[in-house]
Amino acid sequence: MTADNAGDSGGESAPNSEGDSRPVVYDLAPNCTLEDVSEGDRYHAVVNGVVEYGIFVDISDEVSGLVHESNLDRSYEVGDRLTVALEAIKENGDLAFDVFRESSYQTVVVDHEPDLTPIAGLSAGEEVHIEGQVAQIKQTGGPTVFRIADETGIVSAAAFREAGVRAFPSIDLDDVVRIGGTVESHEGALQLEVDSMTRLDDEAMAEARERLDEAFEQRAEPDDVDPLVEWPAFEKLRDDLRDLAHLLRRTVLEGRPIRVRHHADGDGMCASVPVQLALENFIESVHDDADAPRHLIKRLPSKAPFYEMEDVTRDLNFALEGRSRHGQRLPFLLMLDNGSTEEDVPAYENLAHYDVPIAVVDHHHPDPEAVEDLLDAHVNPYLYDEDYRITTGMMCVELARMIDPDLTSELRHVPAAAGLADRSKADEMADFIALAEEEGYDRERLLDVGEALDYAAHWLRYNDGQSLVNDVLNVGCDDEERHRELVDFLATRAERDVERQMDAAAPHLEHERLDSDAHLYTADLDEWAHRFTYPAPGKTTGKLHDRKVEEHGEAVITIGYGPDFAVLRSDGVRLDIPRMVEELNEEVVGGGVSGGGHLVVGSIKFVKGMRAEVIDSLVDKMADAELDEELSSQAIVDTEA
Amino acid sequence: MTADNAGDSGGESAPNSEGDSRPVVYDLAPNCTLEDVSEGDRYHAVVNGVVEYGIFVDISDEVSGLVHESNLDRSYEVGDRLTVALEAIKENGDLAFDVFRESSYQTVVVDHEPDLTPIAGLSAGEEVHIEGQVAQIKQTGGPTVFRIADETGIVSAAAFREAGVRAFPSIDLDDVVRIGGTVESHEGALQLEVDSMTRLDDEAMAEARERLDEAFEQRAEPDDVDPLVEWPAFEKLRDDLRDLAHLLRRTVLEGRPIRVRHHADGDGMCASVPVQLALENFIESVHDDADAPRHLIKRLPSKAPFYEMEDVTRDLNFALEGRSRHGQRLPFLLMLDNGSTEEDVPAYENLAHYDVPIAVVDHHHPDPEAVEDLLDAHVNPYLYDEDYRITTGMMCVELARMIDPDLTSELRHVPAAAGLADRSKADEMADFIALAEEEGYDRERLLDVGEALDYAAHWLRYNDGQSLVNDVLNVGCDDEERHRELVDFLATRAERDVERQMDAAAPHLEHERLDSDAHLYTADLDEWAHRFTYPAPGKTTGKLHDRKVEEHGEAVITIGYGPDFAVLRSDGVRLDIPRMVEELNEEVVGGGVSGGGHLVVGSIKFVKGMRAEVIDSLVDKMADAELDEELSSQAIVDTEA
Amino acid sequence: MTADNAGDSGGESAPNSEGDSRPVVYDLAPNCTLEDVSEGDRYHAVVNGVVEYGIFVDISDEVSGLVHESNLDRSYEVGDRLTVALEAIKENGDLAFDVFRESSYQTVVVDHEPDLTPIAGLSAGEEVHIEGQVAQIKQTGGPTVFRIADETGIVSAAAFREAGVRAFPSIDLDDVVRIGGTVESHEGALQLEVDSMTRLDDEAMAEARERLDEAFEQRAEPDDVDPLVEWPAFEKLRDDLRDLAHLLRRTVLEGRPIRVRHHADGDGMCASVPVQLALENFIESVHDDADAPRHLIKRLPSKAPFYEMEDVTRDLNFALEGRSRHGQRLPFLLMLDNGSTEEDVPAYENLAHYDVPIAVVDHHHPDPEAVEDLLDAHVNPYLYDEDYRITTGMMCVELARMIDPDLTSELRHVPAAAGLADRSKADEMADFIALAEEEGYDRERLLDVGEALDYAAHWLRYNDGQSLVNDVLNVGCDDEERHRELVDFLATRAERDVERQMDAAAPHLEHERLDSDAHLYTADLDEWAHRFTYPAPGKTTGKLHDRKVEEHGEAVITIGYGPDFAVLRSDGVRLDIPRMVEELNEEVVGGGVSGGGHLVVGSIKFVKGMRAEVIDSLVDKMADAELDEELSSQAIVDTEA
Repeated sequence: MTADNAGDSGGESAPNSEGDSRPVVYDLAPNCTLEDVSEGDRYHAVVNGVVEYGIFVDISDEVSGLVHESNLDRSYEVGDRLTVALEAIKENGDLAFDVFRESSYQTVVVDHEPDLTPIAGLSAGEEVHIEGQVAQIKQTGGPTVFRIADETGIVSAAAFREAGVRAFPSIDLDDVVRIGGTVESHEGALQLEVDSMTRLDDEAMAEARERLDEAFEQRAEPDDVDPLVEWPAFEKLRDDLRDLAHLLRRTVLEGRPIRVRHHADGDGMCASVPVQLALENFIESVHDDADAPRHLIKRLPSKAPFYEMEDVTRDLNFALEGRSRHGQRLPFLLMLDNGSTEEDVPAYENLAHYDVPIAVVDHHHPDPEAVEDLLDAHVNPYLYDEDYRITTGMMCVELARMIDPDLTSELRHVPAAAGLADRSKADEMADFIALAEEEGYDRERLLDVGEALDYAAHWLRYNDGQSLVNDVLNVGCDDEERHRELVDFLATRAERDVERQMDAAAPHLEHERLDSDAHLYTADLDEWAHRFTYPAPGKTTGKLHDRKVEEHGEAVITIGYGPDFAVLRSDGVRLDIPRMVEELNEEVVGGGVSGGGHLVVGSIKFVKGMRAEVIDSLVDKMADAELDEELSSQAIVDTEA
Repeated sequence: MTADNAGDSGGESAPNSEGDSRPVVYDLAPNCTLEDVSEGDRYHAVVNGVVEYGIFVDISDEVSGLVHESNLDRSYEVGDRLTVALEAIKENGDLAFDVFRESSYQTVVVDHEPDLTPIAGLSAGEEVHIEGQVAQIKQTGGPTVFRIADETGIVSAAAFREAGVRAFPSIDLDDVVRIGGTVESHEGALQLEVDSMTRLDDEAMAEARERLDEAFEQRAEPDDVDPLVEWPAFEKLRDDLRDLAHLLRRTVLEGRPIRVRHHADGDGMCASVPVQLALENFIESVHDDADAPRHLIKRLPSKAPFYEMEDVTRDLNFALEGRSRHGQRLPFLLMLDNGSTEEDVPAYENLAHYDVPIAVVDHHHPDPEAVEDLLDAHVNPYLYDEDYRITTGMMCVELARMIDPDLTSELRHVPAAAGLADRSKADEMADFIALAEEEGYDRERLLDVGEALDYAAHWLRYNDGQSLVNDVLNVGCDDEERHRELVDFLATRAERDVERQMDAAAPHLEHERLDSDAHLYTADLDEWAHRFTYPAPGKTTGKLHDRKVEEHGEAVITIGYGPDFAVLRSDGVRLDIPRMVEELNEEVVGGGVSGGGHLVVGSIKFVKGMRAEVIDSLVDKMADAELDEELSSQAIVDTEA
Repeated sequence: MTADNAGDSGGESAPNSEGDSRPVVYDLAPNCTLEDVSEGDRYHAVVNGVVEYGIFVDISDEVSGLVHESNLDRSYEVGDRLTVALEAIKENGDLAFDVFRESSYQTVVVDHEPDLTPIAGLSAGEEVHIEGQVAQIKQTGGPTVFRIADETGIVSAAAFREAGVRAFPSIDLDDVVRIGGTVESHEGALQLEVDSMTRLDDEAMAEARERLDEAFEQRAEPDDVDPLVEWPAFEKLRDDLRDLAHLLRRTVLEGRPIRVRHHADGDGMCASVPVQLALENFIESVHDDADAPRHLIKRLPSKAPFYEMEDVTRDLNFALEGRSRHGQRLPFLLMLDNGSTEEDVPAYENLAHYDVPIAVVDHHHPDPEAVEDLLDAHVNPYLYDEDYRITTGMMCVELARMIDPDLTSELRHVPAAAGLADRSKADEMADFIALAEEEGYDRERLLDVGEALDYAAHWLRYNDGQSLVNDVLNVGCDDEERHRELVDFLATRAERDVERQMDAAAPHLEHERLDSDAHLYTADLDEWAHRFTYPAPGKTTGKLHDRKVEEHGEAVITIGYGPDFAVLRSDGVRLDIPRMVEELNEEVVGGGVSGGGHLVVGSIKFVKGMRAEVIDSLVDKMADAELDEELSSQAIVDTEA
């Protein structure tokens, strides 16, 4: 440290008072080196040798020099104390001092400012100092292990006080600390054995934070990839996706875990798998530890189209366990193809108290006023007057590429699969399919991929089935042939099961012609469909509906109902299901009606005993609904009943 | 060892026969030290030096002395053997011997009795001997690791024979052993690297057991805390709780794992969380290993109000796996807010064959004759003519404080929360609430805590949700604000869900006036309530009932039924449900009626097809039931249907 | 290596062309030793000393010798190069060379062929070379750990490149490699620290494979045990079982994991537990690692009598995770008491693409044409015109003994238990029971064991419950008394639950007399039996049926049905259920009828709303079914509805 920059580093105590005009004489700590001194500055010194041509003085254990006899006006003995001024640092490293004779001065104590080694530059065997932010504090049965993040990477630092006892208990998560120690190879990975650890003082911490912040911001900068397909509507969302990519990369750089919740259907998996893979790659590069991705990112399918209490409860408990057992920060929650609506608000409100940042990428109709204040990021085409045709999978492939552009070639077929799975009617679907065709996927196979994803998700239930799903989607899968066979197998089984369901249910569909001239089909799925199997009622209703739309080529509404729920689909009729639910709830007393959806797709719950009233009422409303050829039901949300 | 106490330690072989009157000459093992000899005793010796004034003799490698020439009547050469008597141990440590000249004697072999180091006094690097009881024998892929418990603590001792091969196969769980070895630091914790290990012989083992037993008993002594609230009724239970605290502390000292099963409702969690925390603290202090609590105590919620076969089967399998995989002793089973009734007997009977001690703390109406012989401890207010008003949570807070009195300040609000959750009508509730108010909890918040616990338990299902539950209860939680927010969130959601359920079900309640003038309400919850959600039928019936009690202010009975079950609640009418169940079972042939409960609360199961007969019969019986203003239904048991 | 066998080992480069007739001069690698040379061969040499009586030459760093001056025709200086012929290796180890003077020759480079140490002969501290096949490649956070299998055993070899970075990335699973390194003791087990690792070249690999193959084949040879009971019918199956034992042992020798799926009933557990134990023992002996069995074999109960999609999906995902996370080979799938029918084909077809070998041991009626091509082994009595009377448990006890004959004494009671559980009517049951009686099991207790297994399986659901099940079956259980108590407990509870079910359901059985004079009983189990408990509908129907068979002593059919399923049992009537299902499926449009079974036992699924039609139609068919006194329903497949 030179005196010039002493203020920057916190290695020096401040002068007594700002207005003190007396000259400063530095009192160096014993381990100060040449780096801590500066020509022209004054130092406390002690004589360590007397020679003919002058005296040698020490200004620290490491720094000595000569006061030439021409500068002396008295004699000195070894051990005498004096103050000196550093005249020159010669090219050969020798220091020349003069005696500093003023008797009025102020002393400033200077600590040695060690050379800091960037974490990315550590290598085994070295004694080093590092400075960084505490990302995790894990108490083991032996040492306390701190994960430290600096501008260049993240490393573990093990400090031992007593077996199982917290070392440096005053140091908290998020503090910026300076650590001295020896770099060792621990189970292959590098780890710092801690000799010293200090929290920076407030001023220095603020400065370090600023520095780290700047560095993180810069390193978090996402890649500037061109979208796979030119699409003006999509352009509106790119800045939001870029900001989210930045936020996620920064989350990784700070060592915070990430928990991904996604809708367990085709589009939801096309969205979440690429993002997971991109984040895993980035985590591994930052942590330099092959196990880090496993500890820091978890993907979880959600059966319901909103953030259910059961999931919230489990996520929160898991997060708290991660903190209490592994000393991790609470996770970043990333909701994909899910999470944009009012139903999610109470959960978000609670998480807000817990330092759990939340981001949503969704293409379901949002309640932006309700969720906006609670989210750290919200990407949704409806916020820009676009709609579900931009599927979450399409958005997330771009998001994944912004996080890790090397994935591009692996992901080129994914937007098409996502779009087909969610039946996007976007004109750009043709471009996406063309792109997928370049990779060897024709339309049929893309549809099969979506069907296979749906089918696998159904049987995997709460398991993320990572390896299987990666093989189905052919992302992070190393064997094309295996992917093909697996998709064939699952899609064929799915189709067989759908056929079986259609064979059972279709003959029992009831038909009536509404006043509006629309065809209305209703089916009691509890009576006429196989239960607790694939396809579940939501998808079963969708398949029945599609057949009828194809058959008639005109306006069709389908209602598939069970004991206490109904699934609705419409093509060519504007239903406005949220409004219908509201009305039913008022009209049918004791019906317990709730539900959600959009203009042409939705689901409703009620109590079993009021089913007839609810369905009748519903049909009355539908009879009055106006026709609209433009409207078509997209992929229906899966309602597990 | 001196000859005087030789018999105590087992370090000495017994004389040949009890009647042998010949003098004893000791033959010391080479490593015997001064501690093993005693003035006046005779020893086998060998000459190791001849000097003018006598001969030097060795009686072991470590113990030598002089036979003065005045005692000699012949000459000796180095290597000559003789028998000597120890005349004196001088202040400077020199030993003076005389020759022992009798030719008829019996030889007794003496082993060196090493200095034993108490386990709590071990430190790394030392070579030591320890003596203790084997609490666990875990075969790893490398060494066999024994956990050894002595009067002062528990430590691991690693013995290596061959990779993955059991070392010292003749040594079993519960043996008392003496181990020699080097104390090493292993992953931070201390561990003994075993050089020698011997099982004490029968006599010594019996003595050691007595010594350990005494020490364990003493150390297991619970703390003498004053109850949080003065309450004569509660006084009757204090000795039982104290005995149980003693038993649990002793269980920990012996290194046995503990498995807690508790009713998954508010009171059950108010009971189990403090006990778990107290035991964790005590385990950590005994084991000196931060990981020990995780391996040695497990809390598990039970949905049913008795010990279900599914839980028994899983617990037993888990216990056997712990033994076969980790060499653990079978666990101690602690049933909280659960376990006092006849329904639990078959499970207990089986566990009795397995060395699984069982203790119960419960405030449900017990069948003491049925369970008493099978339990190692049974604490229940009904055993002292008290009743459910002393809730399990109230008892267990005192139990936890007896185990770890330092928890007191953290637990002062818990009895009030438990009492409100189970609607205790005890007069002392006022005192408990006052106590909680001192800690900043008003009645409203305490009710919210109970509701939040119930709600969290519902969604956590079989997960103990430790971190989340601790935050809700604010026990072992370090952030008051977070606790408040979490309780608000969960209680608000719970209320919303209850409201929704009431809106659906209340309009369908059927009312009739019984001959007794009591109001009877019945509701088909399968038809008129939301299913598979919160609140479940038991709680739904309770909430419906409470509203009607409030409305009428006089005798009310409520029956909430599903396809094959009914939940009963009464205020002001004496139902005696166990008797009704018995009668129904006889009267309704092929009804498959079973169930349980008390005077004013209960649940009944039957086969679906006989529901009408069962309910009609039930209502007939209720019509005849006598009114009793004193009787009021407490918290109803949760019947998941 | 001698030149004679150089071609075998790959340690030598091939001559330039096969037709080259010029003499060969070997150019030895510096580390070649005496083992690499051979009298009469020619070598490139360099002079390292000149003496009166000749010159000393080096042909490698390790191999030197004399060219006697009588063989020299010019003078040499140190460092001169020449070619020499090895005349003789003297008894004292000295080598005598002549100068080789032809100027036309071809040079063949020779690598030193290290001495290979067999894996079973490794001991810590040695520097060794091993050669074997790569069975697993696990990337840890530190080194890459390869599991290497040779003729004698399997060992881990740790290679470090960079923390968490794959070492030797060109080496794949199944390659044959040569590894040089130091044997170290790692967490007790031996592990090779890799210095060098090379994949053998194609020719050498092919030869090594052949050698390993031969050795594996030989070591895989099953034990030649005599069957426990003489039984001509069983003789036909012994060769198939022997082949499977061979295949399984070979699978273990190659280090591939094994996944056992078995029917979760008494016979299925009597089959799978012994095989699991035998394989665990063999794995442990091959791997010399106590943890290996836990990582390499997993037993999983299947509720359905075929390989359900949910199980397939999970197994496949698990297998892929094992590969991607632990670098394991995909597992061998062993289906026991399950897996012989057409329903299993699609799953098998998919697994075929995944290098998952599949073997089946089953005694259910097979569809051999359908499954045969997809299986690596298929053992089924029906393939030899025998039938279900040879139960899977009987076959698997012999299989287990072929794998590990030391188990014999532990397994002598198992075939009887299996046979009684599945009600085998084989004449040899008497012999099996006699055998069990010798071990102290009477008929009653064997029946109890079967009942207890069924009951435990019911409550354990998807858990294998290994410790509990082993105690029930008394296989791998060390406490006879505990086994007895446990069986008593579980069997008593099972009987109590069966009684309760009978009490509820029996009064509601409906009776009619068919035209064929057979008695037909039907029961609506959804209405008249307890649901979601033990016994489930399949077993409930069986128990009801058995009572009626006993009562009437003549032809009886029983149908137990729920909302969307029916379970069928017949004694004395030939039903041919597969044909009936086929017909119903055609006749009842929109019935969604599917199902399976044999002549006298089966189950049918349909949609709820068509139940009446399906059951009526079924009863019509039964009325026409011919009587056949010989036919009796065996243990019914458990249909969880």
